[in-house]
Amino acid sequence: MGTDINPRLAEVMASLVKHLHSFAKDVNLTQAEWAMAIDFLTRTGQICSAERQEFILASDVLGLSMLIDAIGYDVSNGTTESTVLGPFHVPGAPERAMGETINLDGKGESCLFEGRIFSPDGQPIEGARLDVWSDNADGYYDVQQPGIQPKWNNRGIFTTGPDGKYSFRGIKPCSYPIPNDGPVGQLLEQLGRHPNRPAHMHFIVTAPGFRKLVTHTFADGDKWLASDAVFGVKASLITQYERIDAETAWRSKFDFILSPED
Amino acid sequence: MGTDINPRLAEVMASLVKHLHSFAKDVNLTQAEWAMAIDFLTRTGQICSAERQEFILASDVLGLSMLIDAIGYDVSNGTTESTVLGPFHVPGAPERAMGETINLDGKGESCLFEGRIFSPDGQPIEGARLDVWSDNADGYYDVQQPGIQPKWNNRGIFTTGPDGKYSFRGIKPCSYPIPNDGPVGQLLEQLGRHPNRPAHMHFIVTAPGFRKLVTHTFADGDKWLASDAVFGVKASLITQYERIDAETAWRSKFDFILSPED
Ligand SMILES: [Fe+2]
Ligand SMILES: [Fe+2]
Repeated sequence: MGTDINPRLAEVMASLVKHLHSFAKDVNLTQAEWAMAIDFLTRTGQICSAERQEFILASDVLGLSMLIDAIGYDVSNGTTESTVLGPFHVPGAPERAMGETINLDGKGESCLFEGRIFSPDGQPIEGARLDVWSDNADGYYDVQQPGIQPKWNNRGIFTTGPDGKYSFRGIKPCSYPIPNDGPVGQLLEQLGRHPNRPAHMHFIVTAPGFRKLVTHTFADGDKWLASDAVFGVKASLITQYERIDAETAWRSKFDFILSPED
Repeated sequence: MGTDINPRLAEVMASLVKHLHSFAKDVNLTQAEWAMAIDFLTRTGQICSAERQEFILASDVLGLSMLIDAIGYDVSNGTTESTVLGPFHVPGAPERAMGETINLDGKGESCLFEGRIFSPDGQPIEGARLDVWSDNADGYYDVQQPGIQPKWNNRGIFTTGPDGKYSFRGIKPCSYPIPNDGPVGQLLEQLGRHPNRPAHMHFIVTAPGFRKLVTHTFADGDKWLASDAVFGVKASLITQYERIDAETAWRSKFDFILSPED
């Protein structure tokens, strides 16, 4: 490496090369295995599109995403824990008023999501943006079924008022297999691992002066909670779904506590 | 991982995950750096095509390809050393008769390549196939300049007779920068590394009963011999180019010794 380069890049690349070479030496990686790895990486890149991120999926199933999450996110001040972004976030979802529904295909068990956004000292946060998304009742995100699901099905953005409260209607999310028609799905199958994720609602919560929170809430009782294919479950993110009435079949309450920016 | 899976895959993946996580922990990899890595891998995959393999290039510049080469290829019996395949090999080059030229664009300094293919006990090998390719006088492989260079320019396949001899005409190869219009080129630039490779002729030599040999011959005296961007140079592969006459300006002699199959 040159001498006049970004010192952090030099540090990261030196460590990467050291660990990459150690890996190859530890297992005596063969030419044929190396060629399989090149082919895996190439296919993984080529299946990526604006609406599919197979490398994030690879990072997720190898536990790297959750490790990066653990390295980067300090929750010692009681703030809400984070988890993986996942490969299905799409920026630019419709902005909606509190109480509106994000469910456009009419499928699934209706659910009211509600709660408040706080700072660690218990003050409600005004102007917090919640970018939320979930799969549909068949276990697919809208971007996995273009032309079948309406665009922006089960996605929306909500902004809190002075009370810091949020509420929106969607569906009780369903557990689903991560996409197994690509290289990562093939790898999981070869590793004898199931591809399933416990049911969850995705949240990205941002507010001026606070750190961005990327997280899920998980449905309590889901059969895959203990073996999430991407290792994303944290106990503090598991929520109850209570049955409240016939029209709004379920309710899921969850309060978010954001960490002030450094 | 499951229990009923390929034990070698289990071994390789367990080691990969261990080293990948150690790397992330050692450098405290941030979310932003992880996102840059995902983006790098995605762009690297998407620039790959039938005629461009950016992941091989990435492996080459990180020294991984040469490490795999060193792990896999035993030269203790005096057989010719191997080196990187590189990203520009294209299967299916024209079969040519001994003595024919592979140079179709008429550019460059003409050169006669000749030598013999032996087994370690000194017997000439009949029916050895030499798949050879080089850049043109401007430092580009034909597949880098479709529509500019003739297809199969500076590529050909030659098969030895009972004497084990080969000879073909081409050009004295030129040193060249590896492609720096993609993610790997950008990385090299950020690392303050030059992208150049010393001039070389590529060979894949195969023969029934012998191990496939993937190698180059390097032109002695080249200014990049000591700092090949892909770490491919081995002293035993450096060859003299002798000036022989006006028509065939240069001659490069090199004998190959193949390793019998196990
Ligand atoms: Fe998800
Ligand atoms: Fe080359």
